[in-house]
Formats: sequence, C-alpha cells, structure tokens
Amino acid sequence: MKLLEERIVKDGIVREGGVLKVDSFLNHQMDIALFTQMGKEFARLYDGCGVNKILTIEASGIGIACIAAQEFGCPVVFAKKNKTKNIAGDVWTSRVESFTHGKVYDIIVSKDYLKAGDRVLIIDDFLAMGSALKGLIQLVNDSGATLVGAGIAVEKAFQPGGDLIRSMGVRVESLARIASMDPESGVQFVEE
Amino acid sequence: MKLLEERIVKDGIVREGGVLKVDSFLNHQMDIALFTQMGKEFARLYDGCGVNKILTIEASGIGIACIAAQEFGCPVVFAKKNKTKNIAGDVWTSRVESFTHGKVYDIIVSKDYLKAGDRVLIIDDFLAMGSALKGLIQLVNDSGATLVGAGIAVEKAFQPGGDLIRSMGVRVESLARIASMDPESGVQFVEE
Repeated sequence: MKLLEERIVKDGIVREGGVLKVDSFLNHQMDIALFTQMGKEFARLYDGCGVNKILTIEASGIGIACIAAQEFGCPVVFAKKNKTKNIAGDVWTSRVESFTHGKVYDIIVSKDYLKAGDRVLIIDDFLAMGSALKGLIQLVNDSGATLVGAGIAVEKAFQPGGDLIRSMGVRVESLARIASMDPESGVQFVEE
Repeated sequence: MKLLEERIVKDGIVREGGVLKVDSFLNHQMDIALFTQMGKEFARLYDGCGVNKILTIEASGIGIACIAAQEFGCPVVFAKKNKTKNIAGDVWTSRVESFTHGKVYDIIVSKDYLKAGDRVLIIDDFLAMGSALKGLIQLVNDSGATLVGAGIAVEKAFQPGGDLIRSMGVRVESLARIASMDPESGVQFVEE
C-alpha cells in the first residue's frame, strides 16, 4: 500500500538491531486518517470472504482492527495478555514469545466470543518472527472458527514470520513489506 | 446515552463486589457500531472545544478512542503501562493504582506526542475510583497541553472517582452513569 510505505519512509526511524520505530503514527500515536485508508485496503483485499469477526491482540493491534471493522461491519475481539478477574469462564489460550520484550506470555480469548461459525480475519500491526500471529491462529483453530486470513500493517519480510505463516496455508496480506532496512540506507520494500 | 444504557441492561452482567461485566460489547469483544454512536455523542458533547488530540490508556480504551477520533479528525495517543525498548527518549510518566488488578503501575507517554499547544480529550471505557483518569490528567498537565475534558463510556457513579475528578475542575462526560447495581436487581442509572 503506497500510502503506508510513503509514511514509513517519511516518519519511520530505523534503529540498530532491526528495530523500526513507527510510534509517531502507528503504535503509540495513531494516525486515524491513515488507519481509515488501511481499513479500506483490508476490506478490498478480503472482499467477499464473509468475514464476520476481527481478532487482534492488545495493545497496538486494537486501533487498526477497530477502524478496519467499520468497513467489514463486524465486531472486534482482542486477545488479552494477562488473565484478569473480570474475564470469567472458559477461555481459549495459547503461548506467545515476544522477541521485542524478551519474554513468553499466554494470550487468552473468552470462548464466548470465538466459536464455530465465525469467519475470522486476524489483524495486527507488525509481523516479524510470527509468534503472536501463530498464537492467534491457534486460538482460531482451537475454537472451531474458520480462519479467513491475516491482515498486517507492516511485515518485516526479512524475518521468517511471514514465510512461516504462509507455509501453513494461511493467507497473509501485509500493507507494507520491508525487504531490508538499516539506519544508514533506510527502508527498502519488497517489489510486488 | 440511551443506547449504551439499554445495552448495559440487556448484555451487562452484574457480579458480586461491584463488578460489571460488559466484555461482550465493550472491553473484550467490541461492538464497533455501538462505538461509532458513542464517538458521535462525544463529538456532540465536546463540539467547538478545539480538541486536536485524544489520549487514552491501553488496552480497553483504545478502540473507543480510535472510533471517536474519526469524529474529531485528530490522532489518538495511548499511554502505555510498561516501558518497552521501542519507546526511546523522554516520556511523561505517572503512577496508577488498579483496584481491579490489585497493583500499582507506571503509565508513560512519549514527550513527542503530548505537548504545549495540544488540546486534549481523555477517553476511557470505565471510571470508578478515578485512579487511571487522575494519572492521565497528570500526564496532560505535566506536558503543558490543555485538558479539554474526559469522555467516559461507563461511570460507576456510586464510587468516588467521578466526584473526585470533577472537584478538580475537570469536565467529565460519561455516557452511562450507574447509580447502583447488584446481581439481583441489576443496574440503576443516575437520572439526569
């Protein structure tokens, strides 16, 4: 998606160690006008797929997912990273390794909100190692819902997550796919 | 707001100990069509106030804030509960006590995204003891931005947070104000 690529070039900051800082518009401050265009693009890509639920994960996937959901006319469910006492009853759970934060955590979704009959689009801000996405896919599969695919804002295509998930037979649509990046030369995108 | 009150009566579940479970439409599964109407109501209430930034806190405030931001035509910044290595540089920080989770934590916002000149509307899903809101207000005040007010989805008006924040001279608009509730008789709203 040209608009997102241009924004990454303009406002993204590449740090050593494969870190892309996009917190001025994507995952700390959020440019809602940009999100609206991203939501329209997800809706175009997954048009006619019968999506009736969007699944994301706290925290930075939620904004993108909610704006996209307006296009799909469906609710959003977000997986939680910690079990709180306000979620009672049975939950679907899986384990996610965060390479950014260097820890492993469980994610959960109430069984009330993910079940057979749902046609689920997973939306998240980043795809790198694929651990979070793999965890979300497992929740969908365990629930008996149908996984339509995944919609990702920024894929670090030089990391293995995207290939891994696609090799599982899951459709993955990323709005910006980064082929390489470094602090000196900036960001290069995958030529589609 | 009638629509939200009716939804709380229909789908909210009152538990012992002052717990209102609204995770089927507000803070786990999110009804985006409802959020759109809530966003329009916040925009009506704060019309003409020059809001150019919405501040919320992860995770369950983000969806409501992003949908509302479409009405205001402004970006959203969400306060983070843990410092990650992807947020570099200086941050505004304050301390919040979570009565739901029984712990104290720091919240942070990058100084890049909250500063003098901003006219800030704080949006969150719940107001009960007021600790999170007080923390967010402190971030705004420390930054030199102007606090326009707070927009809350559900206020537990039988708990002290709303009175506390209003006594600080802050405008607080809550879409549903609960006067009392218990598992037997359900939810009663404050008569406006």
